Amino acid sequence: MPVVVQTIERADPAVIDRLGEIGTATVHEAQGRKGALQSYLRPIQDGTMIAGSAVTISAAPGDNWMVHVAIEQLRPGDVLVLAPTSPCDNGYFGDLLATSAMARGCRGLVIDAGVRDTKDLREMGFPVWSKAVSIQGTVKETLGSVNVPIVVAGQAIHPGDVICADDDGLCVVAREEAAAVLEAAETRLAAEEAKRLRLAAGELGLDIYDMRPRLEARGLKYI
Amino acid sequence: MPVVVQTIERADPAVIDRLGEIGTATVHEAQGRKGALQSYLRPIQDGTMIAGSAVTISAAPGDNWMVHVAIEQLRPGDVLVLAPTSPCDNGYFGDLLATSAMARGCRGLVIDAGVRDTKDLREMGFPVWSKAVSIQGTVKETLGSVNVPIVVAGQAIHPGDVICADDDGLCVVAREEAAAVLEAAETRLAAEEAKRLRLAAGELGLDIYDMRPRLEARGLKYI
Amino acid sequence: MPVVVQTIERADPAVIDRLGEIGTATVHEAQGRKGALQSYLRPIQDGTMIAGSAVTISAAPGDNWMVHVAIEQLRPGDVLVLAPTSPCDNGYFGDLLATSAMARGCRGLVIDAGVRDTKDLREMGFPVWSKAVSIQGTVKETLGSVNVPIVVAGQAIHPGDVICADDDGLCVVAREEAAAVLEAAETRLAAEEAKRLRLAAGELGLDIYDMRPRLEARGLKYI
Amino acid sequence: MPVVVQTIERADPAVIDRLGEIGTATVHEAQGRKGALQSYLRPIQDGTMIAGSAVTISAAPGDNWMVHVAIEQLRPGDVLVLAPTSPCDNGYFGDLLATSAMARGCRGLVIDAGVRDTKDLREMGFPVWSKAVSIQGTVKETLGSVNVPIVVAGQAIHPGDVICADDDGLCVVAREEAAAVLEAAETRLAAEEAKRLRLAAGELGLDIYDMRPRLEARGLKYI
Amino acid sequence: MPVVVQTIERADPAVIDRLGEIGTATVHEAQGRKGALQSYLRPIQDGTMIAGSAVTISAAPGDNWMVHVAIEQLRPGDVLVLAPTSPCDNGYFGDLLATSAMARGCRGLVIDAGVRDTKDLREMGFPVWSKAVSIQGTVKETLGSVNVPIVVAGQAIHPGDVICADDDGLCVVAREEAAAVLEAAETRLAAEEAKRLRLAAGELGLDIYDMRPRLEARGLKYI
Amino acid sequence: MPVVVQTIERADPAVIDRLGEIGTATVHEAQGRKGALQSYLRPIQDGTMIAGSAVTISAAPGDNWMVHVAIEQLRPGDVLVLAPTSPCDNGYFGDLLATSAMARGCRGLVIDAGVRDTKDLREMGFPVWSKAVSIQGTVKETLGSVNVPIVVAGQAIHPGDVICADDDGLCVVAREEAAAVLEAAETRLAAEEAKRLRLAAGELGLDIYDMRPRLEARGLKYI
Repeated sequence: MPVVVQTIERADPAVIDRLGEIGTATVHEAQGRKGALQSYLRPIQDGTMIAGSAVTISAAPGDNWMVHVAIEQLRPGDVLVLAPTSPCDNGYFGDLLATSAMARGCRGLVIDAGVRDTKDLREMGFPVWSKAVSIQGTVKETLGSVNVPIVVAGQAIHPGDVICADDDGLCVVAREEAAAVLEAAETRLAAEEAKRLRLAAGELGLDIYDMRPRLEARGLKYI
Repeated sequence: MPVVVQTIERADPAVIDRLGEIGTATVHEAQGRKGALQSYLRPIQDGTMIAGSAVTISAAPGDNWMVHVAIEQLRPGDVLVLAPTSPCDNGYFGDLLATSAMARGCRGLVIDAGVRDTKDLREMGFPVWSKAVSIQGTVKETLGSVNVPIVVAGQAIHPGDVICADDDGLCVVAREEAAAVLEAAETRLAAEEAKRLRLAAGELGLDIYDMRPRLEARGLKYI
Repeated sequence: MPVVVQTIERADPAVIDRLGEIGTATVHEAQGRKGALQSYLRPIQDGTMIAGSAVTISAAPGDNWMVHVAIEQLRPGDVLVLAPTSPCDNGYFGDLLATSAMARGCRGLVIDAGVRDTKDLREMGFPVWSKAVSIQGTVKETLGSVNVPIVVAGQAIHPGDVICADDDGLCVVAREEAAAVLEAAETRLAAEEAKRLRLAAGELGLDIYDMRPRLEARGLKYI
Repeated sequence: MPVVVQTIERADPAVIDRLGEIGTATVHEAQGRKGALQSYLRPIQDGTMIAGSAVTISAAPGDNWMVHVAIEQLRPGDVLVLAPTSPCDNGYFGDLLATSAMARGCRGLVIDAGVRDTKDLREMGFPVWSKAVSIQGTVKETLGSVNVPIVVAGQAIHPGDVICADDDGLCVVAREEAAAVLEAAETRLAAEEAKRLRLAAGELGLDIYDMRPRLEARGLKYI
Repeated sequence: MPVVVQTIERADPAVIDRLGEIGTATVHEAQGRKGALQSYLRPIQDGTMIAGSAVTISAAPGDNWMVHVAIEQLRPGDVLVLAPTSPCDNGYFGDLLATSAMARGCRGLVIDAGVRDTKDLREMGFPVWSKAVSIQGTVKETLGSVNVPIVVAGQAIHPGDVICADDDGLCVVAREEAAAVLEAAETRLAAEEAKRLRLAAGELGLDIYDMRPRLEARGLKYI
Repeated sequence: MPVVVQTIERADPAVIDRLGEIGTATVHEAQGRKGALQSYLRPIQDGTMIAGSAVTISAAPGDNWMVHVAIEQLRPGDVLVLAPTSPCDNGYFGDLLATSAMARGCRGLVIDAGVRDTKDLREMGFPVWSKAVSIQGTVKETLGSVNVPIVVAGQAIHPGDVICADDDGLCVVAREEAAAVLEAAETRLAAEEAKRLRLAAGELGLDIYDMRPRLEARGLKYI
């Protein structure tokens, strides 16, 4: 059962790059409020926004052997995404693995477990979103799989899906929907900009979105 | 039952402003070790201290409609305080709502749920204390109430109570006790300064507070 | 039963100081992947690395009386390590206690509970690793013990053990093993540096560590 | 500040007794989906339903002194409701205190902390809803208050409020609303019984509640 | 985007029924240690074992409208499986919905949220595995989907997959693998029975599984 | 480093047996309110009280190989006590291992991780206290140790220490203190019985323990 899928499809690089500039909250809204990974995954750094193609890893708890295997499968623009097969907060990944991943053009790591050497990772500019920061090391004894569907923080992720990540967290966009989601996100961004100006000028959302009649119809009382 | 209370009393602005300079731990001690919100509410920024009058929001889980309603009720110096009616970590609030709240003089947000656009919020200088950072969006379908008593992170909060917030967390001061608490806090600050100097010079708390006889009476053994 | 042990043995200061420069993850690996404190203890500051001798405190929940007692036992180079006798997130420690501890040469605090005045502590340069940041104050009513064995975040810690702490978390090294662990850590550091260069040049861990035959023998399939 | 309020108002005993027969979920719905305590409070027994008047206790973490004080204030039909001033799971209460409380007609305990002697309590027929079961004992060193407003599991509770408890958890009914809530609950019970018969016969909620047109109007697609 | 898929494929009923007699741990092992839902989902009853075809529900937090929609899609032998779109512990389901589901032959409910009327559900013999027991009610305002892929407690579940549930928790078997998994499970059961007899007679697993040489080769020391 | 210590000392069997009849809360109080394991370890059965000598296991996360090794070290009257080297909730132990352990006279299992086959275990009468119930299986790849000191749920446990367990949870008694703790526990039991009678007759703890003067001296106000 342990397999390494060596060929995966990826979305259009231009689409991925632009999604990485937009912000996860906007991408999430643009695709109909879906794809948000649960909020317990947190960045170890501030102010970094990325998007990349998921190279997925299914690994045993406390065993990072498959990370080495996965790094060989990385292409420039990819993001490593690791799910342990049961809850675990061990530090699967540190500065050496990051050095290796960066040498292959990897844009970052998303891990539903722990990471370590965080100061080094920040200094190297290798971004990570993780469940924990932990020095607890791992072994290399049990096989897992690379580039198979996994579940990370409540979302099913397929190899080649687009992972968007920033200070707010993470959003996955299905590979085949990436272009359409980008288009919707651009539209949304433009609309938001107009609203921002009106709100900054003191107009109320109650009026901009014409909420008052509906609030009244529902029975909201002002006293 | 869903209501918007449009007129609330607030504490003396000078008292509020000064409470915001003192620090939550000191305010908490000054009012007899009460009013601390539980520690799971965390700031999304570093180094910001505020105090303001609570404009409260009771909202359904995953529904931020009432935030729009509450913003109309804000006056300069207020703080939005939101409690969902059941545990929820959705991102109720982002940069557009912050733009609108700032336009009305709002000093910040305290939310027993999630927030998003955190990088933007930090850049705008709009401070937030929240349970989570989450891109998961909300709907606008269910009514709630504005300016009713709520419970946030283990504390009952009434509209117009003074919310003090800094890097350490949050403390609520009942509106009618604000002046007395400030007075006690000023006294405490002065006393702390004197103690700090003695402690920095190497004196021990054991001696400054005359603890040795009581420790001995209780039976502490030195071996 | 409440006791203060006044004389404890400490490891060689030169060994301790060097362990503090190496990083917790490396120390942890060097001693055979043991000694890691659980990942829920987090630093309140960024970028600080320390090592020091543990002066331990066993305290009742919500009671910081023994911290005052322990400060008298501090020598330059020590680290205060506090375990409550049952789970508690109260703020046992703030800027006044830090002032006193620093006056005695204390290098930092590790606490399986809460801390407060965090902005001041950062400005003073007094580092803390804690379970929570909380303004909730404590009383001084119940005796505990100083310099007895305690359990902190899943690790048994004896007075005089070496506590290593950095952005990644915490590792305890038994006092009597400190020199041997340091030696192993130095060896490991040298080996890591060589590997880093090869990985940065694009070599794969699969090849550097000769993993391919073993992966194949275990049955990993490439498809 | 520590006080014992000796005289509190209670709701009509007949109303309380009937609320105790109805079930917490129905009472909660009948009062407009409010008053539910958070779900982490769990019964230590199965199949017990009660309602009673709250005698409230605010206690320091790990200190059960005020329970002794509160027991003197109990009248037949009361329920003890304890909130620690900060999160704590110590075992504040066991078989001796239960013996004393039962001797005064107490109907049970609701505690946002721990309880012990659970086998004995079940055999005695003294019901408890708690956050934890813990043998960790407490001290008697710090004063608290009896019959003051407290917050338990996210709900503000006033002395004399009606606490309803069963296998599903807990609901608080404000003393002054108890009669009205009971009336609404009786109406709801009757309506539920009619619906149950129709649903058992195979009718769908979609039809009984006429949901189909609204689902279609909102855009639900059947494929 | 909200859809109801009315036609789903199901596994062979005989296979499903037999899987329901075998126990989740054995099924999980038989399919190669995959498919286990995370352990926080717990049964509200003791001693019940079931298997059934998943009718899936994706619902907004605090909104049970789609449960009514899903019940119409149930066939005898199905199991309702609900995932909220963000973490929520509200009581989505109680005795009335259970009455309706049972009338259509539903075998139980798996819900990554809360349930209520648990005493009634136990008396009715309608089994539930849930994240919480909560009286907190829900609204019927926001559309979701029925019979789409969802993620529940860390596992991706497709409509028609076989859900196995017992006192130990839950395991999902992909619909198309159900027959093969059953075969492997039967083989495993037979092997376990033989081992049980040997173990009961005092033979050691060390000998039955011939572990001693491999332990020695790895370096285990007996002292 | 992985070792199996084959010879450990145990406490007097008569002392152990009697401790097993007394109840964990009483034992915990009798030894000065120490030794309580944290409350997240819960029994999978109701109404069972045991005490036994700890045979300890330190195991890698998700790896139950060492359980097989430990079973060989069991003597009648022992209790298996397992700590994973990092947090893990996998099901390390089920009915086959229980069959083997029972054949060697083992009285039960305490595990800071998961267990499975719970229905079978209850029917076999093999008691378990665990952190989780989980079907997630384990591997047999990484060595650990048997009969070394471990930390379980916040308590340091040495091989041969006495583990007391019942519905309330767990208490560890150091082997060399067992006889003295038993004596103190017997004294306490007798005193409790006398108090129970007085409390049942309606006397108040306030009077029995003569608390009123001290409460008044501290400043408690009755209003």
